[in-house]
Amino acid sequence: MKSILDEPFKKTKKKGNSKTFTLISLVLLSLFVVQSFSNVISVKSHFHFNNPHKDKVNTKAKKNVIMMVTDGMGPASLSLTRSFRQFTDDLPINDILTIDKHLIGSSRTRSSSSLVTDSAAGATAFSCGLKSYNGAIGVDPSKSPCGTILEGLKLQGYLTGLVVTTRITDATPAAFSSHVNYRWQEDLIAQHQLGESPLGRVVDLIIGGGRTHFYPIAEGGSRTDGRNLIKEYSKTWNYVGNRQEFDELNSGENVTLPLLGLLADYDIPYDLDRDSKEYPSLAEQTRTALRALSKATEDSDQGFFLLIEGSRIDHAGHANDPSAQVREVLAYDEAFKEVLDFIDSSDVETVAISTSDHETGGLVTARQINSNYPDYLWYPEVLFNSKHSGEYLAHKILTQKSNTESVEDFLVKVFEEDMGIKNFSKEELQLVKNTNDASELMYILNNMISIRSQTGWTTHGHSAVDVNIYAYTNSPSIKEKLYSHKENVGLLGNHENIEIGKFMANITGVDFEEITKKIKGIEHNPLEVEQFSIDNYHPSFNDIN
Amino acid sequence: MKSILDEPFKKTKKKGNSKTFTLISLVLLSLFVVQSFSNVISVKSHFHFNNPHKDKVNTKAKKNVIMMVTDGMGPASLSLTRSFRQFTDDLPINDILTIDKHLIGSSRTRSSSSLVTDSAAGATAFSCGLKSYNGAIGVDPSKSPCGTILEGLKLQGYLTGLVVTTRITDATPAAFSSHVNYRWQEDLIAQHQLGESPLGRVVDLIIGGGRTHFYPIAEGGSRTDGRNLIKEYSKTWNYVGNRQEFDELNSGENVTLPLLGLLADYDIPYDLDRDSKEYPSLAEQTRTALRALSKATEDSDQGFFLLIEGSRIDHAGHANDPSAQVREVLAYDEAFKEVLDFIDSSDVETVAISTSDHETGGLVTARQINSNYPDYLWYPEVLFNSKHSGEYLAHKILTQKSNTESVEDFLVKVFEEDMGIKNFSKEELQLVKNTNDASELMYILNNMISIRSQTGWTTHGHSAVDVNIYAYTNSPSIKEKLYSHKENVGLLGNHENIEIGKFMANITGVDFEEITKKIKGIEHNPLEVEQFSIDNYHPSFNDIN
Repeated sequence: MKSILDEPFKKTKKKGNSKTFTLISLVLLSLFVVQSFSNVISVKSHFHFNNPHKDKVNTKAKKNVIMMVTDGMGPASLSLTRSFRQFTDDLPINDILTIDKHLIGSSRTRSSSSLVTDSAAGATAFSCGLKSYNGAIGVDPSKSPCGTILEGLKLQGYLTGLVVTTRITDATPAAFSSHVNYRWQEDLIAQHQLGESPLGRVVDLIIGGGRTHFYPIAEGGSRTDGRNLIKEYSKTWNYVGNRQEFDELNSGENVTLPLLGLLADYDIPYDLDRDSKEYPSLAEQTRTALRALSKATEDSDQGFFLLIEGSRIDHAGHANDPSAQVREVLAYDEAFKEVLDFIDSSDVETVAISTSDHETGGLVTARQINSNYPDYLWYPEVLFNSKHSGEYLAHKILTQKSNTESVEDFLVKVFEEDMGIKNFSKEELQLVKNTNDASELMYILNNMISIRSQTGWTTHGHSAVDVNIYAYTNSPSIKEKLYSHKENVGLLGNHENIEIGKFMANITGVDFEEITKKIKGIEHNPLEVEQFSIDNYHPSFNDIN
Repeated sequence: MKSILDEPFKKTKKKGNSKTFTLISLVLLSLFVVQSFSNVISVKSHFHFNNPHKDKVNTKAKKNVIMMVTDGMGPASLSLTRSFRQFTDDLPINDILTIDKHLIGSSRTRSSSSLVTDSAAGATAFSCGLKSYNGAIGVDPSKSPCGTILEGLKLQGYLTGLVVTTRITDATPAAFSSHVNYRWQEDLIAQHQLGESPLGRVVDLIIGGGRTHFYPIAEGGSRTDGRNLIKEYSKTWNYVGNRQEFDELNSGENVTLPLLGLLADYDIPYDLDRDSKEYPSLAEQTRTALRALSKATEDSDQGFFLLIEGSRIDHAGHANDPSAQVREVLAYDEAFKEVLDFIDSSDVETVAISTSDHETGGLVTARQINSNYPDYLWYPEVLFNSKHSGEYLAHKILTQKSNTESVEDFLVKVFEEDMGIKNFSKEELQLVKNTNDASELMYILNNMISIRSQTGWTTHGHSAVDVNIYAYTNSPSIKEKLYSHKENVGLLGNHENIEIGKFMANITGVDFEEITKKIKGIEHNPLEVEQFSIDNYHPSFNDIN
């Protein structure tokens, strides 16, 4: 993939044959005579061939805006994954990920309530362009709903989509498409996402997990109000509930919008554990969404807004699971490549911005494993030999160990065949044998991998390090704007996370305040404590408050 | 500080008054008539006012090249320091460091021998533009000396300088100005730095610590060969050995080159511990070097090359000392500001590139301190209340505790007054009381601060995370080149560390291979094991090999 930074030079050179030049110089001559008393700015616009990037972004022109979020991916995830792939595929040291080639800056992530943000405040910074408190979904620090970029673009006639690998009602997609005081109000988030909002339906395409908040406890779901939203909305939304139905969408060719694709009750499995016969990859989800939305906007004056999240990089961070994390990052990189290919082939001005809400786990690609002076190295081969996530293996051990003749033989087989660990200690074997809590067992298994690969972690929560910003566009004018260091103008260099939301609004003419006025009446208070749903990765109400 | 990315627009506007424009348009008119059959490239150069960035860098034109190294500073150091300062000075959340404003990319740091580099291989990547093994000082993987950018520029007629806060014979300055197989051959490094090289003297200015390798053991130094280089070279080098003599340089106005400024036997104290009556700050050292070198090159056809290192960010990382680290980063930021001010005021094309060789310590701005779900926060106030480094306090405790009436009262005073810790436990008090090893005691004290501020560390060594690249220039043509994503062309985005060395060579026309031929005969083998000098922060021979 070429850097488009170099494009203008190439274009200039192509046009530099003498005939073209004679013509251009004649035009220039007359322009200079006519305009010799006017200002330089106006001359600049006539020099388009010479300096195409100086144009201002036309906010009204048809556009596609693709917001990509690597939930929980900090800078160390990149060196980890890159070296892992170089080792695995025997690649040279300058072989890098696709996203690496499009790094333009970094984002400061603190929320209004803490130096360490959660995903809710992080996503609200992107969606509403403002800092809010940890737990806030599309609401400001005073718990008033704030208009989102997705809503603003929908009102302008864009189509909109959400593609994730976790629950569609989880913080990141929720902050773009709903407004609730606390992230665990996922039943209410699902309602907003399907259209229960003063604006009506603002989402046109959903592909992800999280079916559970769309149907009631009585039927095996999580909803406390007894509603089955999938059935209720079956006339207005086209529902896709498994891999087979997803495949019938034919990579987006056969999609009729609005599309509700809920491919798992909770998360789509980690890419490391994923059975491709059961679940599509993030890249497949992305391709389907891009084709569906671009096809549906083909004859429209407006394009689409799409959120794509590599959701479970964060989960691998919370679990301190380096084996799962590198595969999640690689799966995201494949999705990013889908987006670049789409942009390169699109005639519509399109921009993709990819960043993280925060880092998770305090990942460090080096770990001192004893009190001697530390080695200067780490071992990617340990991650390569590990064939499943700790989450998967903890589940496997807990569900199967009672059915085995010899628990120890069974565990040795898990260590050797699933984890690639032959030098386990007696103590490790006993610890795993005696641990019956799934989370605790997962941490123990992941620690066995982390210690041997010398991968460090400092928390099962988030950290405050700046996260990377990547971007790609086929539009010279958007690129011109992107590549400015200026606060609240471009995204080159170091910026506040809220500037990413503002950037998307600036290039599309979305007025956040205007949208905020329109959604004032939306239901967003937590009505019942029972409604809270806490997943394995995120804090309880008491921890946040 | 404005981003210079926005400069050309401003300049264009300034020149856009009607009189100037009339004149320019008349000139343009005639140029177009004369040149209407020539190619676009030549026209572009006449349109300098319109598009000054398209010029190629003139490698022969007078230039200053300033290489700045933040030894051991990873991405997390920035968020740590920024939030620390926001807290300390009650600043808004968008108050950022000066370097933050000039972020342009990141550098991949692995060496030829490991995924985790040391400073020697890291600095050799910058100085020779090639990957070498951990421990290598200006030699390639086969242990052959490699020509450095400093040597190349010296041969072109540039003046050269080295400014550091650790030993001038330590890895980073050594890799630019000497060639030895292993970094601990510091006696030999000192000889090379003073001119014992096939090229003769290549360094014109030295300001830093590390006097010890310039005079013999018998006189209290470290040299095993009995030589006193300070005396031997007293006729060719002007020696400055303390703060008073440094002040007589009058911020560089009174410098006669070559200048040998050795202001400490080993390190200049951490900025947190530094007595400004005894030692200058890195910013003062920088100002002095910039003035001395720019004054001495005033009437020359060539400018200067200057290496400036914030050396002890790395030491604070090795020691896992967050209080010392934030002050080291702030001191570096002040020095960076000196460089920017110099560049803004200079008529000579000048570029400063600032980056790290690697991250040290596995610093994470979040730390889970118990098995409950982790808080999403960390506490900068703990670092603010801590008034000395762990290194300083360990020394203080070990030298003073035997002279106190009550050791416990003395330690309580250290905890409360020096460290700002009132909630120490009995166990901590006993542990500190019973620890008599300086390094161990330092680690314990630093851990007391790290736990309370919820600052995480995973090693006392280095880690493999990418480090930031910052840059600033007053030259539109250098800036044009800098702001390219292209491998081996610009430094925007993600790059190998060796590309930084190549960039400096590319803009100045230095041919590394040519210099390499000229220094073939330099003495660089480790002759005696006794010559090895290991400092408190770096591994022994056995650890590296």
